[in-house]
Amino acid sequence: MKYIQSLQNPQVKQWKKLLTKKERDRSGTFLIEGFHLVEEALKEEQVLEIIVSEKIGLPPRLEMGSTEVIMVTEEIANSLSETETPQGIYAICRQPKPGSGLSAAKTFLLIDAVQDPGNLGTMIRTADAAGIDAVIVGRGSVDIYNSKVLRSAQGSHFHLPIIRGDLEDWIQELKGKNIPVYGTALEGASTYTDILQSEAFGLMVGNEGSGVNKDLLSMTTGNLYIPIYGKSESLNVAVATGILLYYLKK
Amino acid sequence: MKYIQSLQNPQVKQWKKLLTKKERDRSGTFLIEGFHLVEEALKEEQVLEIIVSEKIGLPPRLEMGSTEVIMVTEEIANSLSETETPQGIYAICRQPKPGSGLSAAKTFLLIDAVQDPGNLGTMIRTADAAGIDAVIVGRGSVDIYNSKVLRSAQGSHFHLPIIRGDLEDWIQELKGKNIPVYGTALEGASTYTDILQSEAFGLMVGNEGSGVNKDLLSMTTGNLYIPIYGKSESLNVAVATGILLYYLKK
Repeated sequence: MKYIQSLQNPQVKQWKKLLTKKERDRSGTFLIEGFHLVEEALKEEQVLEIIVSEKIGLPPRLEMGSTEVIMVTEEIANSLSETETPQGIYAICRQPKPGSGLSAAKTFLLIDAVQDPGNLGTMIRTADAAGIDAVIVGRGSVDIYNSKVLRSAQGSHFHLPIIRGDLEDWIQELKGKNIPVYGTALEGASTYTDILQSEAFGLMVGNEGSGVNKDLLSMTTGNLYIPIYGKSESLNVAVATGILLYYLKK
Repeated sequence: MKYIQSLQNPQVKQWKKLLTKKERDRSGTFLIEGFHLVEEALKEEQVLEIIVSEKIGLPPRLEMGSTEVIMVTEEIANSLSETETPQGIYAICRQPKPGSGLSAAKTFLLIDAVQDPGNLGTMIRTADAAGIDAVIVGRGSVDIYNSKVLRSAQGSHFHLPIIRGDLEDWIQELKGKNIPVYGTALEGASTYTDILQSEAFGLMVGNEGSGVNKDLLSMTTGNLYIPIYGKSESLNVAVATGILLYYLKK
């Protein structure tokens, strides 16, 4: 097993670059952190290499197959972490190719400009739980491979296709396949429970402050809103996504 | 208007102590930060004093009535902030008395040991949106007046009673009034859509990792679960709360 002790090692420098979107895009890879995420990534065979701190050693319960494992000092391990209590285990994963696993997809979550990584990750996890076939993330959203998005999604990145895409193109494409696309809006929208549940649909949700872009809303099959019965002005976007997906999927 | 320039001023020291639960409990007050929260607190007449940074001056659009306003240096203002981009406005609020506004309450959210402040705040905001009458927060949960809980709840603390309480006592009390109490569980539970929606109910949700305490689950009218259709292991607790409250309230 390779053992790296220097923070100046070129491989360590390369791993650290993966904390930036630019390098993740260039290399087509991303870095994950923690037992649970590494376990989920291994199940789906997306792992290129595993990095473990010498402090924890080789975790016995992980089924690593022939994946390369590199041991590093605790200092190096901590330098890769973006959490307060690093678990000492990381993996480098390949980004799935856009379009893989999409041919049979019938249910879609479309995300317009969601900027909080905790929200985006929770929405991906929720789409997974609701059995949605694919998540399309439009311009202006936080990067899907941001470490906090990955942590909040708790492994769902490895369970369903998460794709960066142009939402205008996707709305056209889904409507062309007779799949209804519903936006979420406060004006000119129907109460969500007035919509018929169906086998195939796209649900589009948007930015935490301003909602879905108006040009996109004008392209949908229809727009929905969730009634507010109390005095709060709105719902958190991940909570709203959960209410709508579980209603539409029923 | 009072103007404070020294970080050593006793009033400044007292405000800073409100960043701890201990002092919030002792004084029966809490500190809020930002325009939106201060505005919501003023509407509900819960504000004892307003603190503004000299950098922003008096915000014209706030209706402050006869509430005392204290101007402070930017340094003092920033020392009270727990955000990365302080807005320079704060208020000291009184904690509502436990029990106020509860006599006519028919719908309750009971929270067992939710530890993430963002989750607890989002759950309070969601209960407000769903028109729930009161939120009961049991032992082992993060403090309801924690600054991140307050921010995530976006003012809902001022819209409905949020009460620290013993959940065993509350389950007994609600059942004594013929109000059904539903726990959330993975084993021995019914799919939530099998439950009849009703005018009066208590919904109990629990800790992010371990769910609701088993002793509490054994006391409920019945326990519910939300089906997982995909590969994720569970839903975020705030998302689950939204799905269940909006279903039960329908």
